[in-house]
Amino acid sequence: MNPYQAPLADMKFLLERVFDAPQTWGELAALAETVDMDTATAILDEAEKISRDLIHPINRPGDEQGVSFEDAKVITPDGYREVYDQYAEGGWVGLCGDPEFGGMGMPKMLGVLVDEMAYSACNAFTLYGSLTAGAALCINAHGSDELKEKYLPNLYSGQWAGAMDMTEPQAGSDLRNIRTKAIPQDDGSYLISGSKIFITGGDHDLTENVIHLVLAKLPDSNGISLFLVPKIKVDDNGELGETNGVTVGSIEHKMGLKGSATCVMNFDDAQGYLIGKANRGLVCMFTMMNYERLAIGIQGLGTSQAAYQMASDYAKERLQGQAAGGSDNASDPILVHGDVRRMLMTIRCYTEAGRALSVFTGQQLDLAKHAEGEVQEKAARYVGLLTPVAKAFLSDRGLDAAVMAQQVFGGHGYIRETGIEQLVRDTRIAQIYEGTNGIQAVDFLGRKTTGDDLRTLTEFVGECQSRLAAMTHVTDAQKALITSRFDALLASGEYINANKLSNPALINACAVDFLDAFGHLIYGYFWLLMADRAADHQDASFSTAKQQLADFYLAKLLPKVDYHLAQVNAGDASVMAMAEELF
Amino acid sequence: MNPYQAPLADMKFLLERVFDAPQTWGELAALAETVDMDTATAILDEAEKISRDLIHPINRPGDEQGVSFEDAKVITPDGYREVYDQYAEGGWVGLCGDPEFGGMGMPKMLGVLVDEMAYSACNAFTLYGSLTAGAALCINAHGSDELKEKYLPNLYSGQWAGAMDMTEPQAGSDLRNIRTKAIPQDDGSYLISGSKIFITGGDHDLTENVIHLVLAKLPDSNGISLFLVPKIKVDDNGELGETNGVTVGSIEHKMGLKGSATCVMNFDDAQGYLIGKANRGLVCMFTMMNYERLAIGIQGLGTSQAAYQMASDYAKERLQGQAAGGSDNASDPILVHGDVRRMLMTIRCYTEAGRALSVFTGQQLDLAKHAEGEVQEKAARYVGLLTPVAKAFLSDRGLDAAVMAQQVFGGHGYIRETGIEQLVRDTRIAQIYEGTNGIQAVDFLGRKTTGDDLRTLTEFVGECQSRLAAMTHVTDAQKALITSRFDALLASGEYINANKLSNPALINACAVDFLDAFGHLIYGYFWLLMADRAADHQDASFSTAKQQLADFYLAKLLPKVDYHLAQVNAGDASVMAMAEELF
Repeated sequence: MNPYQAPLADMKFLLERVFDAPQTWGELAALAETVDMDTATAILDEAEKISRDLIHPINRPGDEQGVSFEDAKVITPDGYREVYDQYAEGGWVGLCGDPEFGGMGMPKMLGVLVDEMAYSACNAFTLYGSLTAGAALCINAHGSDELKEKYLPNLYSGQWAGAMDMTEPQAGSDLRNIRTKAIPQDDGSYLISGSKIFITGGDHDLTENVIHLVLAKLPDSNGISLFLVPKIKVDDNGELGETNGVTVGSIEHKMGLKGSATCVMNFDDAQGYLIGKANRGLVCMFTMMNYERLAIGIQGLGTSQAAYQMASDYAKERLQGQAAGGSDNASDPILVHGDVRRMLMTIRCYTEAGRALSVFTGQQLDLAKHAEGEVQEKAARYVGLLTPVAKAFLSDRGLDAAVMAQQVFGGHGYIRETGIEQLVRDTRIAQIYEGTNGIQAVDFLGRKTTGDDLRTLTEFVGECQSRLAAMTHVTDAQKALITSRFDALLASGEYINANKLSNPALINACAVDFLDAFGHLIYGYFWLLMADRAADHQDASFSTAKQQLADFYLAKLLPKVDYHLAQVNAGDASVMAMAEELF
Repeated sequence: MNPYQAPLADMKFLLERVFDAPQTWGELAALAETVDMDTATAILDEAEKISRDLIHPINRPGDEQGVSFEDAKVITPDGYREVYDQYAEGGWVGLCGDPEFGGMGMPKMLGVLVDEMAYSACNAFTLYGSLTAGAALCINAHGSDELKEKYLPNLYSGQWAGAMDMTEPQAGSDLRNIRTKAIPQDDGSYLISGSKIFITGGDHDLTENVIHLVLAKLPDSNGISLFLVPKIKVDDNGELGETNGVTVGSIEHKMGLKGSATCVMNFDDAQGYLIGKANRGLVCMFTMMNYERLAIGIQGLGTSQAAYQMASDYAKERLQGQAAGGSDNASDPILVHGDVRRMLMTIRCYTEAGRALSVFTGQQLDLAKHAEGEVQEKAARYVGLLTPVAKAFLSDRGLDAAVMAQQVFGGHGYIRETGIEQLVRDTRIAQIYEGTNGIQAVDFLGRKTTGDDLRTLTEFVGECQSRLAAMTHVTDAQKALITSRFDALLASGEYINANKLSNPALINACAVDFLDAFGHLIYGYFWLLMADRAADHQDASFSTAKQQLADFYLAKLLPKVDYHLAQVNAGDASVMAMAEELF
């Protein structure tokens, strides 16, 4: 298996030339002193080394060995602990954390690229740090000063880990039905009792403590509140004390992600602390959820990149058949075959445009966090608009990429030791957890698009159209392919918005196609943006590749927008007509 | 997990009312006395019991336990041997076999339905019998009378099994490069030496002998010949004798199909017998390959049906959220949600139209085998046209179905014990083996479509158009959706045909999309055909369901034809442009 190599040139190109990161950072007081392009470059270079040399080597063995559960303890695969120690020591868990509590304060725009590399190297391992960073984000946003001071430094340093405890057997997508209870105590804390399932990193042997963020209900309330519940109690000096009634019931045996512990967690009068206001837990949890949703999209993106590398390397090495039209060789590398190229170009186009979406969303997160006034307000809305798209579209394309890359390998792709089938199994979950991609789509079409009568979508599209108009290195014909479809997208959105009240099933029935249309369309926009900005790149072959990939995307993949809009425009009648008993 | 239940009503409907099987059978001398609708019904009913009660129960345990390899022997999972004994005793391996040698002589049109049920029940188990039936078919078509008499009865009875030995490490899709040698002996036999990989059912403990069909080269020849090589020699009385230099090197550890042995086979001066003419082995092997290609399509179809049943059952049971527009229930079954319905309707529509394709292809096989004159000649061409489509399109939709069904299960779908993720892992290989789906597409567009300058395709489309015109229970608007797209398909075919010589990469670059366009389009045709023929069905709800599914297909899935044709029409320039070093 070839070692993973991060696409550093592409990453730096996106930051510096496509999204003008140095300018954004320079304009934000919180970032101006923290980061510039030199710092960012140094961090990316170091992250690439860590991902390639430290994380990637535990990926295949960890899949074969898997997590085990012995004597009520969760044991991660060989090597995970040592790698996690080095990863944490390098400060990577706290890369984007609040400097006031020991984080490095780096912009998310940079963080998404570091995350992508780690997910490319190993999906399962990277989740542990991602959950920890997400938990810290939530505590920092909604927790009391006391909780922040007590927990954040050890989370950012990676000494402790975080977990998100929401799902119960009867409460998955619908959290109204959770039964975990929180009983108030005289000292201001709560006693938490209940059982949670599907808890990623719910327990493990990587850190000495796991800090759970638990959704529970107060007595006589249907509202949902959020609590911080440490596995081991932390005393006033920040030292670890007694155990806290937090135990693992079992671990799940899954399709993939075998190095990641998915736990049934039991809370038995465990001491917890309210985060945010009572009965407002979902709002707080969504801070973490949105963070994780983007992270899970990036899981799909990292998988796509890893899949591309493996498949393109194989296609250049594997000799089989001859080029159409004849060849001087007895056998040519399979890269000569149009269908193999089609698959590789497809993966590559989705992956690079996906990275653009990831970085752009990261940029909006930075603006929403650090900017002010209208800029901040608009960025916050863009984050809302783009987060479900990033989660769903990146993870859907992640599966596509892994499946297509596996196809390039032929029969060898079905054999475990080749490693490509692991990508399929590992990335499949990204379409499901943190809210299924169907739920992301309903959020996108229902809340984020028609929820404000298309105001944010229209504004976003308008900006894209303006930028398109200003591009100087792409043709008018290319621009027209995008602009006409933006018009069609808005028309479909208007149709849904105009009929959503009279026809309440419409949004749910058409949401996935609307999101897929939007995703395919903005990828086309990103491709023109990248081709335009690469036109005068110092490396002529870099520029050529971007133009050729953009051509392929526009010719071959952009038409999928029309297909998805046709489905949206066909409405919900045929979806809803059949009676339950006929299914 | 719910038990598998075969869709018997749909199967009988296809035979009797959609494709007029009794009439076809009555007109063919070889079948007129053998089978009528009563016989077919009895066979289907019995196959459903066997599939549900005998085969399905070993599916999940077999996946967990897998095949093992100990002391150079392959051991199938617990229960496989006992189930195989009963399956063989029931005569199922020889269902469509030649009655002269102990087969039951049933039509393929019926056999495809029996195969589907078995694959729905357990992919891995069913392969053993499928390979055996395929080997028997090849021996019957090309072997000497002596070989037929010696081997066919024990293959049809299931006492011995068959295997197909083609691939070598350096010769996968491109069989020119095989190195296995065959040295002629004085007694007319050959000594075979070489190593083969990826041999499904290459060895196992289900039968006392395995009959290998091995591709090898004669001395000083680049031609490829086919040899029958028994694992254990068979003496002149048909008794088993000495071992024959056929050993298992290892078994593969795979993504799925864990109950199916995938072997490295070593032949060391193994005694073999030429099948067909020297240097014409590929032609003979293709008899088996074409059989297996349809069977592998049916593997995907069976998976789709199993996936649909599991997901629709779950969607009716799982309570989560409320129907859009409000509900009297605290929580509704998730079937109320438009997006869940969208996924289930999609799986159902692909599955039922896929079954129609399978039965229609089976009918053409029966006509090609038993009819005479022009009817036979045309049917043989239709078999050639439809086999790569059935293999690729059914297996591609099989993965789609399994992935979508898994999505319906949410997080539970990622857990092994639920069983749905096994379908994803098991069916994934169907897109790869027996010729990757890319190779099927090149066969379809290169040989079967443009190979005769669109004669067969045009004839096939013309017949579909005539049948469409004659339908009385569907609207003209519905017909127009299909007929206009048939015209567009032929236009795209003409474009490829007109440019294939000047532009040799065109076919390979556009083949998959052309096949996908054709598949989506004929499914639309089959949906109208089924809706039309169901209109006066005695069960009104059966009729309603078919109409509603047809409506959904036309509204939501048929537009995908346009997307794929747009890709075809975009040609190969953007696919072939990028230099190798830029990948």
